Amino acid sequence: MKTPFAEILNIGDEILYGQITNTNAQWISTELDKIGIKVVQQTIIADSEKAILDALNGASERADIILITGGLGPTKDDITKKTLCKFFDTELVMNNEALLMLEEFFAKRGKEMIESNRLQATLPKNATYIANHKGTAPGMWFEHKGKIFVSMPGVPHEMEYLMSYYVLPNLQKFFQTPKIFHKMIKTIGVGESFLSEKIADWEDNLPENIKLAYLPAFGMVRLRLTGVGEDLEILKQQVQQETDKLLLLIDKDVYGFDNDDLAEMVGKLLVSQNKTLALAESCSGGYLAHCFTKNSGASAFLYGSVVSYDNSIKMNVLNVKKETLDEFGAVSEQTVLQMAENVRNLMKTDIGVAISGIAGPNGATEGKPVGTIWVAYSDKDGTKATKYQLGIDRMANIQVSSHFLIDWIRRKNGGRI
Amino acid sequence: MKTPFAEILNIGDEILYGQITNTNAQWISTELDKIGIKVVQQTIIADSEKAILDALNGASERADIILITGGLGPTKDDITKKTLCKFFDTELVMNNEALLMLEEFFAKRGKEMIESNRLQATLPKNATYIANHKGTAPGMWFEHKGKIFVSMPGVPHEMEYLMSYYVLPNLQKFFQTPKIFHKMIKTIGVGESFLSEKIADWEDNLPENIKLAYLPAFGMVRLRLTGVGEDLEILKQQVQQETDKLLLLIDKDVYGFDNDDLAEMVGKLLVSQNKTLALAESCSGGYLAHCFTKNSGASAFLYGSVVSYDNSIKMNVLNVKKETLDEFGAVSEQTVLQMAENVRNLMKTDIGVAISGIAGPNGATEGKPVGTIWVAYSDKDGTKATKYQLGIDRMANIQVSSHFLIDWIRRKNGGRI
Repeated sequence: MKTPFAEILNIGDEILYGQITNTNAQWISTELDKIGIKVVQQTIIADSEKAILDALNGASERADIILITGGLGPTKDDITKKTLCKFFDTELVMNNEALLMLEEFFAKRGKEMIESNRLQATLPKNATYIANHKGTAPGMWFEHKGKIFVSMPGVPHEMEYLMSYYVLPNLQKFFQTPKIFHKMIKTIGVGESFLSEKIADWEDNLPENIKLAYLPAFGMVRLRLTGVGEDLEILKQQVQQETDKLLLLIDKDVYGFDNDDLAEMVGKLLVSQNKTLALAESCSGGYLAHCFTKNSGASAFLYGSVVSYDNSIKMNVLNVKKETLDEFGAVSEQTVLQMAENVRNLMKTDIGVAISGIAGPNGATEGKPVGTIWVAYSDKDGTKATKYQLGIDRMANIQVSSHFLIDWIRRKNGGRI
Repeated sequence: MKTPFAEILNIGDEILYGQITNTNAQWISTELDKIGIKVVQQTIIADSEKAILDALNGASERADIILITGGLGPTKDDITKKTLCKFFDTELVMNNEALLMLEEFFAKRGKEMIESNRLQATLPKNATYIANHKGTAPGMWFEHKGKIFVSMPGVPHEMEYLMSYYVLPNLQKFFQTPKIFHKMIKTIGVGESFLSEKIADWEDNLPENIKLAYLPAFGMVRLRLTGVGEDLEILKQQVQQETDKLLLLIDKDVYGFDNDDLAEMVGKLLVSQNKTLALAESCSGGYLAHCFTKNSGASAFLYGSVVSYDNSIKMNVLNVKKETLDEFGAVSEQTVLQMAENVRNLMKTDIGVAISGIAGPNGATEGKPVGTIWVAYSDKDGTKATKYQLGIDRMANIQVSSHFLIDWIRRKNGGRI
């Protein structure tokens, strides 16, 4: 059986104007790659009937699967559905299932539904309706001359939802793609080149049908193993064997696998030990708390965070001594030590951590360049601080230092659940 | 004179596999837009002769300018130059200027030059050589049947360098491009369809040369006006006139323009009035603080945030009464009223706001489904609360409710700076 070819068609003037990053193309490409579908082209075009028709015709010649995003909103410049009708030589009809869904969507929010909303429930006659529980534009699946066409909204989290629960599984079923098994091994605290040296021999001895990819981001490196074969069970075993060998080399740097999120894993680790956590933040400005609270279930171990942006809050809420701030400054070992210990006492938790630094681009002082970030960890055994010297990008500094501090909690509490 | 059309052709398997983000397409699009060249398509293809030839032929039909990146490295899978020769029906010849440059490049780094490096100095006979001072692959400029083709390396900083010093100025000269002016009007608190109804008459009466686009995201809708004309000053005036008319209809819903960020604008508004802000967060879990602190300069008005995830923190740090929590729960009007007022007193700020809700997917109770979010605003004139009923997606609930609360601060303090 041949590998099916796919083309991604992103419709949207805002991409061609360079006003938004086209994250959809990359996300879809990654997901198709995981299930053994080869993306032969990404085509990004304007909301224009001629451009869409030309692109659909071109894509039909190159690919077996055409995945379309964008142009499904309720406004006048959203013309994808009308153009699909022209392409398939059909017409728009009201889809009752879609209408019901929309009515529920608006009722739930106590909002009035107007005519342009109602029209979002009309679909080309030959479309199979894909329910969108994340927004108002339905997804559509078409089978046409042996090829699959899918039309989805351009809003990333809506598109990702439709792809995950409907499109990807149905493509696998339709094309009976070869078996592919992925395993992601997630590390933190070791740079890509050091990691690569540590595991060079193992990498060289991987079986032919298993490939390794390095995916670095914000202080973390993900290692993706991809096995291709006939039998999924054998494949899983084979990939697991290689993973086991790999763990012998880098066990301590691995915080999780596959979809594991660092903060979520650390949360589970703490919950399993019945430990509670309090945060004292300055430069991270709430991002550290957000890392934990973006995941449901954080209330099981996280009591809270004091974002002490102003020094008065460091003093009045976190009881950092005025003399310490005067003598050493807010970005100092002495200050973070007090922040970590005091927030632990204030919130009556087992662990307290603190972070204070110069995220940039402003705020650098003599001896403290942008990227100077102090963190501290406090528990019943004492309180320790350490310094990171990071780069010049504000968001990267906030994110990397927060991730490293979360990793410190992990390493201090047994490493991995 | 007509607007020249451009197509961007990115060659590279790694983009199609989803392994790297295609930042080149966005960067080039933004730069072309600024000089009034309209990007009609971005096409991303594999390092395959057939794909490149097909794409070149297609692009020639759609565009006057074809900007190609990638496939110029010294390895065997880099076939762009050979394929360009086939397309232009010409052959590779050694370019002495390019060779000299390469020899210098290697000499400077004390590296030996091997045959595959030397071959990088061979160019199609009809190419105008563009010196690359950032790497080893030369750029190439072609004039062919009245159209411009440019081939550049795929490494972003090399491509950006060639574009900036050579390609963009030469395109402007060659095409004597028309002027383009964009204005983004940023709204919050009104849905896309309601907004569209509110401004329908205005939209219908826009001059021929000004176009409108809706760009919605997380409770906000950005409206983009794009004007095309001969004279930039007249164009700016014309777009400003339309913007002024639009503001008469939706003035209160507009928080800013162009690159303005909601939280940053609200910060500036507060700073201009010498007001300070304190946050009390529950379900937003630090995200609300992060909205402000992701921007440099937040310390000028934001004292801090108490993320009171656990009820004990609501009681012990924010002084919410135990009876209130017992009787009405953490997600209630009564609780957020106390949170907002008390955090204002605790941090001694002019304004205190609070947020407590059920972000989901768990935590729903009788009468409080997922997406129930209470917020409160407190200043010297009193404290008020309101409820949002949002959706089921945790991150969307956190983001939309935080944005809406920030918008409340905006509306209570004069709307816009």
